[in-house]
Amino acid sequence: MNVDIWSDIACPWCFIGKRRFEKALSDFPHRDQVTVTWHGYQLDPALPEHYDGTELEYLSERKGMPADRVAQMFDEVTQVAAEEGLEYDFGRIVVANSHAGHELLHLARAKDAAGARGIADAVKEALLSAHFEHGEDIGSRDVLVRIGAEAGLDGSEITAALEAGTYRDSVAADIRQAQALGIQGVPFFVLDNKYGVSGAQPAELFAQALDTAWREANPLAMVGPVAGADGLDGGTCGSDGCV
Amino acid sequence: MNVDIWSDIACPWCFIGKRRFEKALSDFPHRDQVTVTWHGYQLDPALPEHYDGTELEYLSERKGMPADRVAQMFDEVTQVAAEEGLEYDFGRIVVANSHAGHELLHLARAKDAAGARGIADAVKEALLSAHFEHGEDIGSRDVLVRIGAEAGLDGSEITAALEAGTYRDSVAADIRQAQALGIQGVPFFVLDNKYGVSGAQPAELFAQALDTAWREANPLAMVGPVAGADGLDGGTCGSDGCV
Repeated sequence: MNVDIWSDIACPWCFIGKRRFEKALSDFPHRDQVTVTWHGYQLDPALPEHYDGTELEYLSERKGMPADRVAQMFDEVTQVAAEEGLEYDFGRIVVANSHAGHELLHLARAKDAAGARGIADAVKEALLSAHFEHGEDIGSRDVLVRIGAEAGLDGSEITAALEAGTYRDSVAADIRQAQALGIQGVPFFVLDNKYGVSGAQPAELFAQALDTAWREANPLAMVGPVAGADGLDGGTCGSDGCV
Repeated sequence: MNVDIWSDIACPWCFIGKRRFEKALSDFPHRDQVTVTWHGYQLDPALPEHYDGTELEYLSERKGMPADRVAQMFDEVTQVAAEEGLEYDFGRIVVANSHAGHELLHLARAKDAAGARGIADAVKEALLSAHFEHGEDIGSRDVLVRIGAEAGLDGSEITAALEAGTYRDSVAADIRQAQALGIQGVPFFVLDNKYGVSGAQPAELFAQALDTAWREANPLAMVGPVAGADGLDGGTCGSDGCV
């Protein structure tokens, strides 16, 4: 079963949603047969590659959001993140454009597709953690090379791919697909190309979506007639009684 | 998903458009579920079955186009074709009527419909290449029999079908359908009988059309509420911020 997840890096609900989805996946009986693919999305393509102020300053100055409301939102999200075991630190966040990070993710996806396993997931996890928990600049080439190398990629290959823009079109294709899907916000989860889940929903909802999509792809093959139909043999009891 | 393509043989943009569409299709995740059908179109039904001059002479003498403008157009198109890996050779082109070529394509389509695969596409490719790259006479029965046989058709069946005009009405039906669709030029692409793409557009645009048509035919079933709506659980971030 395929789960395609559209997600940005500088997106507080994306990390929370990742945790909640992972919780459902770890309890899912068929988890070994689930392939997760991370797709890029940019909440704010206009973000500068580097910005010297804080996240709060960026949102209030550039986006015109009232500073006290932004601060309150940070507090609330930090608390929700803490419930998922994440230690958000908005005061240290480095405002940065996520495009190169998404390109790195595509390099990792290519390695996974070529037979490696879990590199893209490790990179996605590290990018989110670097941004929200450790005040690292996910727009910086050095940080990206380090994160990729720790996940098992070759450092010089990362530098070459980012310099050549090897995966620029792949990120554009992700964003185009998101448009075709009508995605207006992230995280957004697509199960088996058929079921959509919008937002960092509770783990139970992801569990329900996994069950539904799995059953759809693997319907029961009935052996014998459906009991009770056409006066055939094989009694059954339902809410209306027994036949 | 069905893609219907109206296209002529003596049509330089049709070959270029074929390449660009193929590029998008090869990157399309659901390419195995796409059926491409080639439809005939005649840019110039009045073309003689044989004409002894060059393409440049035909266009300048019979069509009254200034020779230097035609030559310049040839140069430009040759360059664009080269960018798609095609080696156009306008100096060697044999002016010929494409009607019999379209009939051959219908014989190939019938074989594909009867369970064969890829014959019509191989014939279409070979006809375009013969005309634009190899100076072959696509009006000649011998050339058509050879092209068809190389694609897997039976030579004597081709000869019989062309002699009997078995597929003459099928070509007429293609052209009538094109008129009904309002097609005024080729190539023209119709996706799932719903989305149209006119001309040899960039591969990017074909990719977008494939995504859109696919999603339209396979809408997501949402599991759970749409995040952010009605103050429900499940945070999401959009371009206007996070809820």
